Amino acid sequence: MGKLTKKGYIIRQLNRTRNKRLELYAVTRLIHTLNDLDIKFVTQQYVTRPDRKRALTDLFFPQFDLHIEVDEPHHLNQQEADKLRSADIINATDHRIERIDMNDSLSLDEINQKIDEIVADIKRLKQSKSFKKWDMQEFESATYIKKGYIDVDEHVAFRTSKDACNCFGHNYKGWQKGGALHPYEKESILWFPKLYPNGEWLNSISDDETVIIEKNKNDRLESHIDKVISEDKHQRIIFAHVKDNLGQVLYRFRGRYQLDLENSNYENGLI
Amino acid sequence: MGKLTKKGYIIRQLNRTRNKRLELYAVTRLIHTLNDLDIKFVTQQYVTRPDRKRALTDLFFPQFDLHIEVDEPHHLNQQEADKLRSADIINATDHRIERIDMNDSLSLDEINQKIDEIVADIKRLKQSKSFKKWDMQEFESATYIKKGYIDVDEHVAFRTSKDACNCFGHNYKGWQKGGALHPYEKESILWFPKLYPNGEWLNSISDDETVIIEKNKNDRLESHIDKVISEDKHQRIIFAHVKDNLGQVLYRFRGRYQLDLENSNYENGLI
Repeated sequence: MGKLTKKGYIIRQLNRTRNKRLELYAVTRLIHTLNDLDIKFVTQQYVTRPDRKRALTDLFFPQFDLHIEVDEPHHLNQQEADKLRSADIINATDHRIERIDMNDSLSLDEINQKIDEIVADIKRLKQSKSFKKWDMQEFESATYIKKGYIDVDEHVAFRTSKDACNCFGHNYKGWQKGGALHPYEKESILWFPKLYPNGEWLNSISDDETVIIEKNKNDRLESHIDKVISEDKHQRIIFAHVKDNLGQVLYRFRGRYQLDLENSNYENGLI
Repeated sequence: MGKLTKKGYIIRQLNRTRNKRLELYAVTRLIHTLNDLDIKFVTQQYVTRPDRKRALTDLFFPQFDLHIEVDEPHHLNQQEADKLRSADIINATDHRIERIDMNDSLSLDEINQKIDEIVADIKRLKQSKSFKKWDMQEFESATYIKKGYIDVDEHVAFRTSKDACNCFGHNYKGWQKGGALHPYEKESILWFPKLYPNGEWLNSISDDETVIIEKNKNDRLESHIDKVISEDKHQRIIFAHVKDNLGQVLYRFRGRYQLDLENSNYENGLI
């Protein structure tokens, strides 16, 4: 896939609604009535819900931490649950969730009215001073270098690990490894893990995203643990390798994590 | 399927766009921007084009004899060509066809502008004095009894053959046969044929819809022809049995046809 434009992005996102008849109606009406290329949306976003369960919301507006559910909350089917492993999961525990009821007893006018209320609400939210226009450069390091910081709450992600590296002062044209040195902080590394079982690795992240575990099935685990503990680079700035809902790889910023020397061992892995 | 409401109809129609990514975008934007429950639309309408070829148009507004094609004219694939046999085919030879170009070189703003122009045009067409609001009772005989006539150009169709019968003065609760007597005209019958090969029948209608042929594979043909010619009911008011794009049976009014005594014979069938 070439460089994704807003046009390509929007068309592909709307096409993701096509498995559910009512969702297609509600989502396309909402987006076309909103009719604003400054506002980003994601259809079928994997989220961690307030009850800590993983779920899909039908429509997500990252600029407003607002999710729309059409009809019933969506319970993951097996195929979706399988995809969840490598999916880009947004922590929605403190996000707002609006529901569009498509119940048979409601007329189309009633449904349209609810959708139009949500549209009006989003237009109001856009008036906030802190609103930042949707920018397709959001995945490029230059955007964050200019900004001067990255914040987990701002849904930061990169398309490549080199962009993550370059944010911290590297100047790579490409980067293939699963980690990189921090150019200024001796105690930190940049890490680009898959936070789910993959190959010989048995990595994981806790549902509340506070604990990450690095494990390895093979004998390499013990020497790896010894090396990490001895090297004294005990902070990791983590960009997890995930796939977004269009199937594209993203390196999603997870924050800065500190090695738990007390609990890391051959049995537990690195915590 | 129960009684189809505007809500159910619109939701199902929009969902028919889901095989083509660009069509879904353009059709949903057009319909949601138009946002008018008085205006009927049909997605993926089979038509006879000005070049007499059968085709699908992506969006059809029967009240305005207006068709929208998204990108290239749609050439029928094999599956669609198979469906064509029993499909409800609209004669679009004197209809207007508008095209929405979704070419890669066009920006979303340019595409949206074209869609919005079409919407403005439709809103203008609606201002015409002859505009009739979309009425879900359009398939019921009472509508046409009140009106006093039926006209091929007004896209008349019924869901059941009894409704066709009752238009002419019958008062049937149900009607299963392929034809019915005309209650007032001795020389006419009402006929509800499948105008394509089906079972022992080899019926057909010409592309320009002026000639209908009734044939039968079996020995019954000769006695049938003798009977029809002798009975002196040489006019047929024809409602063809078709399936609309949602898969529902329709009896589509085709007009009044006169038996061609000169050319009807055992070899040709009834013309």
